[in-house]
Amino acid sequence: MKKVLAINSGSSSFKYKLFSLPDEKVIASGMADRVGLDNASFEIKLADGSKHVEKTEIADQEAAVNLLIKFLKQFNVVDDLHEIVGVGHRVVNGGEYFTDSTIITKENLPKIYELEDYAPLHNPAEGRGIEAFMNVLPEVPQVAVFDTTYHRALDPVHYLYSLPYEYYEKYGVRKYGAHGTSIRYTAPHAAKMLGKDLKDLKLIICHLGSGASVTAVKDGKSFDTSMGFSPIAGITMATRCGDIDPSLIQHLMHVEGKSMDEMIHILNHESGLLGLSGISPDMRDVRESDTDRAKLARKIFINRIVRYVGSYIAEMGGVDAIIFTAGIGEHDMGVRKEVMDAFKYMGVEPDYEANEENGEHFITKPDSKVKAMVIPTNEELIIERDVVRLTDIN
Amino acid sequence: MKKVLAINSGSSSFKYKLFSLPDEKVIASGMADRVGLDNASFEIKLADGSKHVEKTEIADQEAAVNLLIKFLKQFNVVDDLHEIVGVGHRVVNGGEYFTDSTIITKENLPKIYELEDYAPLHNPAEGRGIEAFMNVLPEVPQVAVFDTTYHRALDPVHYLYSLPYEYYEKYGVRKYGAHGTSIRYTAPHAAKMLGKDLKDLKLIICHLGSGASVTAVKDGKSFDTSMGFSPIAGITMATRCGDIDPSLIQHLMHVEGKSMDEMIHILNHESGLLGLSGISPDMRDVRESDTDRAKLARKIFINRIVRYVGSYIAEMGGVDAIIFTAGIGEHDMGVRKEVMDAFKYMGVEPDYEANEENGEHFITKPDSKVKAMVIPTNEELIIERDVVRLTDIN
Repeated sequence: MKKVLAINSGSSSFKYKLFSLPDEKVIASGMADRVGLDNASFEIKLADGSKHVEKTEIADQEAAVNLLIKFLKQFNVVDDLHEIVGVGHRVVNGGEYFTDSTIITKENLPKIYELEDYAPLHNPAEGRGIEAFMNVLPEVPQVAVFDTTYHRALDPVHYLYSLPYEYYEKYGVRKYGAHGTSIRYTAPHAAKMLGKDLKDLKLIICHLGSGASVTAVKDGKSFDTSMGFSPIAGITMATRCGDIDPSLIQHLMHVEGKSMDEMIHILNHESGLLGLSGISPDMRDVRESDTDRAKLARKIFINRIVRYVGSYIAEMGGVDAIIFTAGIGEHDMGVRKEVMDAFKYMGVEPDYEANEENGEHFITKPDSKVKAMVIPTNEELIIERDVVRLTDIN
Repeated sequence: MKKVLAINSGSSSFKYKLFSLPDEKVIASGMADRVGLDNASFEIKLADGSKHVEKTEIADQEAAVNLLIKFLKQFNVVDDLHEIVGVGHRVVNGGEYFTDSTIITKENLPKIYELEDYAPLHNPAEGRGIEAFMNVLPEVPQVAVFDTTYHRALDPVHYLYSLPYEYYEKYGVRKYGAHGTSIRYTAPHAAKMLGKDLKDLKLIICHLGSGASVTAVKDGKSFDTSMGFSPIAGITMATRCGDIDPSLIQHLMHVEGKSMDEMIHILNHESGLLGLSGISPDMRDVRESDTDRAKLARKIFINRIVRYVGSYIAEMGGVDAIIFTAGIGEHDMGVRKEVMDAFKYMGVEPDYEANEENGEHFITKPDSKVKAMVIPTNEELIIERDVVRLTDIN
């Protein structure tokens, strides 16, 4: 039976899901954690629900890929490596170069690294992940699925910054957005739930994970999105600052004696919920704390979502449905409640009882003029489908 | 008869208005232009409508103040210098130090300069303007009227950035906003036109000059505003970029080999309408041009206003009226039309015929659920009143 791997690489980890074809069932999933660090571990979950964790040294990403192969064989998930007909990798930024998901070879791999400034937390780690799989499985096509290609549909009015125009022409400085793979799953799903054609709907997708964004979908396409040139912009995130005034960076460089690169590191890793609360980047910890700063961090997180949803309602001239997805969107009822309450003026009638449940369902009343719903995202499924589409497996 | 001067200083210019008391009539106005540069000139307009311009060398701001005194005497506007009982100065940023308009002395003047990072285009020039008047008119109280103090009412949820919290505690890194003096004039005026108590209204003020901002007014106070730590943030302006992704500055520093200070200069002086259109920072020039880039610049300018108005409607849970003021707001019917059209979904019914007129009036139909109006701003009147209030002139 043919199988496709979907990979999401971090700087010292990767998560994986193995799909069987053509039924698209997840037959194994898990992660390699703390690769190259102390206390590394490898985890596999099988279709029968069993979970196996091995604490072992994992020197590098290639060692992690070899461990994955070992586990897949050991638990009889894969009999022969030839069953794996393709590996799909989430890559955050494809810049102006990659306009669709793409088979990655030694020739175009460097392009992923070159976009480092566009996604410093992501692109280099994702490039190294692809390289590791190329080395261990040299015969298997590696497909990069970019978070940005979905937002190629944006109009220049929405993607250009008010900068000297030549910065766009020379260096591709524009809004790229992210989470496109998630929206490619959730938006059509929302249309199905609403019983309408996606092309006739105005949707706003709140993808609220440790990275978080708000995207407006109109005419079946991305219309505007809160992340920018890089995934640092937009709403407040776990450790990323979202929108700020650039002058304050200059001021902090002056008073703190820091370089721009040091400041960008702080804006990526020490800001957001973590910087505001002083407690944790994890909304579950922030929510449970009763310090003033934790409460404030939560309010600010919600406020920034409301700001963007309001902007996109104005840009589209209305909205049919607001969708919540990803970690916080799928599990934090309080955030969902506050956001819904803010849009009562638009005709959102929250169903507070339904909102207490998670999983795919409506959380507004049946006759609510504007609907809201939870849709658990499934980026890996989109990645698997892109691998199938591009490698002509079937 | 007692008189009060209101001053708005730029880097090589100042504009002035002289008010008589207690009738608050403007008895002279004009400007000193290109101070310290070639082709300097001094201009005075009198209450009878006559205008006099002198092309003359103006070595520095003090020379300009001396010219002003000479002209006021020459045209019999002032008989005796003692008639000038106070001078009020617009100052953009008062930081966390100045919480109200303040009499400026040798002791607190340095504080205005210290806030240079917060408003690099404004505070140093305004400080030098105050100093020049102090030297020429040492007996006359000099009052600074800060654009920021109006926004002291903001809630931390709206004024804090999602940064490490200690940056706020140590360095006052927060949203300060601007154009408060304009809003202190236009907001009560709007309430009067609507026949309601300002405290019961949700207003959105679009102050659209070469500096431009959008402010939400609720419960009679500033509720949120688009300018940030500095006046660079928010919507697209004549030469300022408005909101951008900070990562793109880092990228441009890498590829252009520029320093942060050079980049901030570009974001302040070479961006906005000028950078996008490549033609002019002046909306009148941009509007008249039919190049693609000029058309795009205009669309982006309008889009950013719509984004912020939409955000603030969401934050306030509705809106009673949208107010247009300052150069573009008072004279560009096309911008007003596009913004109004975007909010038809909220019940804005534009009166397109009324919109063809300028001056203070409604530009929506009488039964429009949400009203829109033009209100020519009058910051100098607010400055004059603050001088009277603080110096106990009457």
